[in-house]
Parts: sequence; structure tokens; C-alpha cells
Amino acid sequence: MSARILIIGAGRSSNALINYALSQSEQFGWHVTVADADPAAAAAKVKDHPRGKAVWLDVNKVNDRRELIERADIVVSLLPAHLHLEVAQDCIRLKKHLVTASYVSQELYRLGDEARNRELIFMGEMGLDPGIDHMTAMQRINAIRETGATITAFRSFTGGLVAPENNDNPWGYKFTWNPRNVVLAGQGTAQYLQDGKLKFLPYQRLFRNTWDIDIPGLGKFEAYANRDSLLYRKQYGLDEIPTILRGTLRYPGFAESWAALVRIGLTNADFPILDSIKITYHELMEALAPSGPGSVKDRIAQMLKLEANGEVMNRLTWLGLFRKKRIKLRDATPALILEKLLLDKWKLDPKDKDLIVMQHQIDYELDGKQYRDVSNLTMKGKNAEDTAMSRLVGLPMGIFVRLISEGKIKATGVHIPTMKEVYEPVLEEMKEYGMELTHETVNL
Amino acid sequence: MSARILIIGAGRSSNALINYALSQSEQFGWHVTVADADPAAAAAKVKDHPRGKAVWLDVNKVNDRRELIERADIVVSLLPAHLHLEVAQDCIRLKKHLVTASYVSQELYRLGDEARNRELIFMGEMGLDPGIDHMTAMQRINAIRETGATITAFRSFTGGLVAPENNDNPWGYKFTWNPRNVVLAGQGTAQYLQDGKLKFLPYQRLFRNTWDIDIPGLGKFEAYANRDSLLYRKQYGLDEIPTILRGTLRYPGFAESWAALVRIGLTNADFPILDSIKITYHELMEALAPSGPGSVKDRIAQMLKLEANGEVMNRLTWLGLFRKKRIKLRDATPALILEKLLLDKWKLDPKDKDLIVMQHQIDYELDGKQYRDVSNLTMKGKNAEDTAMSRLVGLPMGIFVRLISEGKIKATGVHIPTMKEVYEPVLEEMKEYGMELTHETVNL
Repeated sequence: MSARILIIGAGRSSNALINYALSQSEQFGWHVTVADADPAAAAAKVKDHPRGKAVWLDVNKVNDRRELIERADIVVSLLPAHLHLEVAQDCIRLKKHLVTASYVSQELYRLGDEARNRELIFMGEMGLDPGIDHMTAMQRINAIRETGATITAFRSFTGGLVAPENNDNPWGYKFTWNPRNVVLAGQGTAQYLQDGKLKFLPYQRLFRNTWDIDIPGLGKFEAYANRDSLLYRKQYGLDEIPTILRGTLRYPGFAESWAALVRIGLTNADFPILDSIKITYHELMEALAPSGPGSVKDRIAQMLKLEANGEVMNRLTWLGLFRKKRIKLRDATPALILEKLLLDKWKLDPKDKDLIVMQHQIDYELDGKQYRDVSNLTMKGKNAEDTAMSRLVGLPMGIFVRLISEGKIKATGVHIPTMKEVYEPVLEEMKEYGMELTHETVNL
Repeated sequence: MSARILIIGAGRSSNALINYALSQSEQFGWHVTVADADPAAAAAKVKDHPRGKAVWLDVNKVNDRRELIERADIVVSLLPAHLHLEVAQDCIRLKKHLVTASYVSQELYRLGDEARNRELIFMGEMGLDPGIDHMTAMQRINAIRETGATITAFRSFTGGLVAPENNDNPWGYKFTWNPRNVVLAGQGTAQYLQDGKLKFLPYQRLFRNTWDIDIPGLGKFEAYANRDSLLYRKQYGLDEIPTILRGTLRYPGFAESWAALVRIGLTNADFPILDSIKITYHELMEALAPSGPGSVKDRIAQMLKLEANGEVMNRLTWLGLFRKKRIKLRDATPALILEKLLLDKWKLDPKDKDLIVMQHQIDYELDGKQYRDVSNLTMKGKNAEDTAMSRLVGLPMGIFVRLISEGKIKATGVHIPTMKEVYEPVLEEMKEYGMELTHETVNL
């Protein structure tokens, strides 16, 4: 039952996973190798654990990467999503299992037959969102289906936020996750299904279209549509369902302000500003503002059809967008400039707690009556190091690695965690870490 | 002085170029090969000309392509812009001159030293816009500079339109150029310089920001910003100029209506609609409309903050966007669906004449006084086959090929036509084809 575990990536979200793997290593006879381009970061997380090892890896060095993968049994990739495919191809070639928390791309799904032929499991979307959302949703969906009910709508919302007691900036948001992904979130076109009708939300309108969500004990949140919800009709076994929507949760007011950044053009990553090293934030805003009389701020407000001293404009001002301060980034895109500014403004203070909120709403019909099953999950972190985000992203991967090493996973091929043999033991063990989904049924 | 000319591409805009090359072939001893993926199209244009030859070429077949290029002295590529780089690399390797009408990419500029070392000329932007705009602009800029004046602003506007007498649809536009490029025009961020201030216009606001332009004898037009105008400061020798803007001309009202299509999401090319073969235009609009009571059209109008029976909504309706008619395209993006619809609606009738309009506005200071040099160029085509567009895109390339074959071009490397040795003979010969720039000076 002993296994060699290779974790590639020792960044922001790796804490809980690495700690889990090391803490279980004695019991299950694991050897845990943590590889990162920054070997000090890997070493800091492995510490001097007798069954742990930190190594340096530049993932673009194909031979180094393959050599490491060769010496493992199970590979967990925490790399940026676009790098998974190459690692997956190595895993096919070298016959290794693979676990990631990223969305599974079409290209990765195409490796399914090869993985199955080699009796390998490639598990993607095994983090929080995607990950725990799939597992908790499937638990509720199957419980409801077992009563003989017909499910008529599925809506699921997840947010990684800052805890209310540390929510002390006008945006109601701090980074608990990859800042670049937050800045570029939603680019493309979101898709969902409502009352049998296909719905598309192009990026330029995404943040203008929100749903109000109540989370018991926490109050009101707003949600915007998350990527292509339609993909999950088949995955969840809800092929005929007329309504399916996945969304991202924020504190109220965030989306309207973010929509302003989108409209201004500050989330554009499509061109570098050649003079960006020389200009100020104020000059950047001048460049993006309509020409005319009045201050840059007034003209931006006018363009956005907003009060110059209203809430949204105050949030933009608070970010420092109108300050005559140098940007100090070379040839940067607007998105990169915005990211740099937000990194400073939306930083989680060392003592700040983060907050994960999740809600599934499952409408169903039973004996001619309409019901809604509402399930909620919330979790707070301890501080900026030990975040709920890191736990809820990392622990499911760790637990799944354990299930593989114990031979408890029968499935082979490329999957997301919608199968009972996966979600039942994972969710059961997650209770030990304080995660529990509560649910109630209301009449519709 | 004899030369073997290879023209790759026999599509929409190749007529005038092929005719020119064949008509000059006897006098200059040319052999003209026209290669296209559709050999019948190539043959139809070469006819039975004794010095012409039509051949079949799939440009992706590297060996076939190289074999053809090997047997030429001068290559003219009418391929889509993204295919030029590979042809250019072949030309470096096989030591051939290259001429295109497309924008020169950074990658192509990087071949400059290699081209220069091999004494080759790679001339890009040698069509109308870009092309004749550069040449006529440089002619005026140099004439003004020779008087000792200081140029303070440069603005240049070009449009490929339908002649007023055939302008009989509510959009004031018909296709005289690559429809796909028209549908995707402006994606990215436009850049220009105004009164010393950098200006960025992200796509989502591009068509909301127009300038009014008067063309003598033709009346009012509107212009929207075209790509990155800043690139031309250096190219035109106007490094210190505080205002530089290139724009695209349309009949008034077009931009506001196109902005509606952008806002709705109909120009998005970022995702395929998996059910597009099954749905109607009406269902597509439903998918893009906000949910709620009222007709799809009313909800779209409301989202756009427009009158449901106003001019813009009437243009959308005229396109057939609200009809319950099947789209009949498989896995198509919204942009592709829109392109298909427009191909039908914006078709140039066989007898329709097209119209090219161009205006440069060059502000300058001389002896303490401010002037504006306004130059105009207009040209109508004969019919849908013999368009002004085809002539103004094709003839400059043909004439430039002649200049190379006569040994009149001393420049080597990668260029656009801003040099006197190029624009003077080209513009002089263009007069024979009825193209002339008129200009007048006004006091500011």
C-alpha cells in the first residue's frame, strides 16, 4: 500500500494538501516529493519531515519533469491549468495516476481512452469550485432522486471571500485565490439554461446580470454566472433538466463596480501599453476616458452614467486609479496594471480570516408537489496562511490520493468527482476537517 | 528584366492585380502564375492568357508551396494575414521578394535583417488601407515639411463603402471586402494620440466613439478609430507629433447600430454554440436577451436602452435577427452566424458600384499661423466585379512588382510604402487608373 506521491507546485494553495500528505505519510507508507520552481518555497512547506522531500523543478524542462514523474506513483499537479496537458501526457507515457483541482479541458478528456487502457485514473476538478461543489451537489441530487422525485432545476453558487469581521474595504473583497484568475474571471461567454431556454452572457454584460442569494447566518450575497453551466447537465446526469446555472458569489455591490472596470477597459489583457513604465495611474485613466472638459474622474463617471461621488466611483477612487502615481511596470497590459494595484489593495492581512460560502438550490417535483432543496456550506479560515480556501481546495485532492493508494478507486480514465465511490468517502472525511453541508427543504 | 511572378490567392480582391500583371506581362517579359486552393477560380481569372498559368495550391502543404515559390522571382501573397509569416520564411530561404497588402506583424518585421542580408524587399501594407493611405499621407506630409512647416496633427480616415446611388439598405453598408474581417473589425483595443495624450478605446466602446467627417461632394460620414495609430508616428517620421489618429469611415448611423451588435454579443467569436444547427435566429436572440416579461425584441431594446421601434432596433429587425428561421450552421460562433446573415443582407448586387473615400487632415504651423491641409480621394467602381476596392488594393501591388522587376527599388528588408522611391512612381501611375488626391488648405 506504500506510494510515492509527487506534488508539483508549492504555491498559495498548496499548504493544506502538503500538510495532509505529510501527516498521512507514516500511516500509509507514503513518500512525498514537493517540486517547485522556487525550491525554498517547497522546502518551507516540507520542513524536515522524514518522509518529505523538496526539489527544484522548472516544468518546462521536459526531461527533469519526466524524471520526477517517473519516480512517483501518483502525481498531483497544482500548476496553472494550461500546463496540465503536458503533465498528463507524461503520466500516460509513464503510467502514473494524476490529480488536479483545475477544470478539465477538452484536450485532457481526449486522453480518457489511453488512461483507461493503462488502468490509470486522471481526476480533475478535485478542489473546491470545481470540486466540492460537484461532490456535494451529487450527494444531494442522488439523495433526492432516490425518493423518486423529478429534478426540475439545479443552481449552484460558490464564493471565496473574506470573513465578515475582516471585510473592511469598500469592495468587500480580498484575494484568497490566484489574483490573475480573479482579474481575468469571466472572459469569454458564460452559458446556462433557464426554463428550457439557452442563455448566453458575453463578458461585457456578465457582471451586470446578478442573482441575489441568501446564506443563513451570513445574509445577502450576489452571484454572477460562472463559465459554461451546460457542460454539467450530462456530468450530473441531468440531461433533460430545463434550468441549470452555476454562479460565483460576492458580497453585494462588487459586481456593479467590477462591471465598471470592465467597461473602462481595465481588465483587457489584449495589448501591452508600451509606455507603461513612464505613466501614472491618472494618465492611464486619461487614456481610457473620453476626451472633453472636466476632470478625468468626471469624464469616466459620465461615460459610465454614474454619479461622480457615488459608491462605484468611490470604489474606483479608493483603488488609487486617479492618483498621479507612477505605475512602474514595463509594457504591461491594463489587466496586469490592475492586478498589481489590487494585489496591494486587496491583500489579506496576516490575521484576516477567509470565508467559503456555497449554496445549491435543487428544485424537484414529488407526488405532484414542488419543492426546493437548499443546501449550504460555509467555512472560515484561521488566518491568511491557514485559509479555508487552501483546505477546501487541497484536502479533497489529498483524500483522493489516499483512496487511490488504498486501492479504493475502481474507475479509470479521465473524470471529475461525480461518482459515489469518490464523493462519499471524501465528503465523509471532510467532516473531520469541519466541513459539512446542511440542507433544508422548502415548498415552492 | 524578365521576371516570374507568383500570385497566391485568386479571391475577391485579386481581379485588378491579376489583370494588371497579365496586361504588363508582354512588355516586361513576365510569366504570371496564379495559385489558389480553388483552381477553377484561378483559371477563370487567368483565362487563356499566353503568359499566365493557373495552378492548384493548398498553402498548408509546405512542399507544394515551396516548390511554387522556388520557381518564382517575386511572390505576391493575398492570403489571410496569419498565413504570411510562413510564406515570408519560405521567401527568405529561397531568396524571393515578397509583396502583401496586409498589416505587417511584429513577427514579420523580425525577418528584416535576414531579408536585408539577402538583398530582398518584403513590402507589406501595399494595398488601400493600409497602403494608399500611407503613400498619399507621406506625399502630403513631405510636401508640407518641405515648406518649413511644423506638423502638429495628423488624422487619416478611409472607408470602403457602397456608392450613394446604390446605398439602399438601412445600414448604409454592403460588403466590398472580406466579410469576416468586417464582422471581427476592431476586436482588441484601438490606440491613438490626442493633444499629447495617449488614448485607448477597448472594443466594447469603440463604436460608441465616432468623429464626423465631411467629404466634398459626398457629405457627412462618421469615423471610428482603427487599430494602433501610434505605430505610425515613427513610420511617418512624426515622432514628436501630439495628435495622430487613423480611422475607418462609414455612412452616419452605422457605428451606433454596430455597437448594439457588439453589446448583444453577436460579434463574439470566442465560443461555438453547440446546438446552432437546431436553433432559430429568434432563439439565438432569446439566449442573448435578459430574461423577463415582454418579447425578445422588447427585452433587447430595454437592455440597449433603445426605443423598440427606433432606428437601431429597426436595423436589427431588418437583418432578420428576430425571425423564427433556422440558422442552419453547425457549432457556429455568434460571429459566424452574424457573418452568414450579413452575407445575404449586405451583398453587393451585380450592378452596384462601390465607393472608396479617404481623407487626410494635416494640421501645421508656418510663420506663427495655423493651417489645416485637407486632402481627399474618392473612387467608384464599375460594378460588383470591377470594384474600386479591388483596383485600389490590387494595383499598388502590381505597380510595385513592376518597380522591383525594373530594378527601381533600392530598399531591402521589411517595409511599408512610406519611402519616396515607392510612393512617387506608384501614385503617379495610379493617376492613369483614375485615382487622384485633391487637397486644399484652410486657416485654423
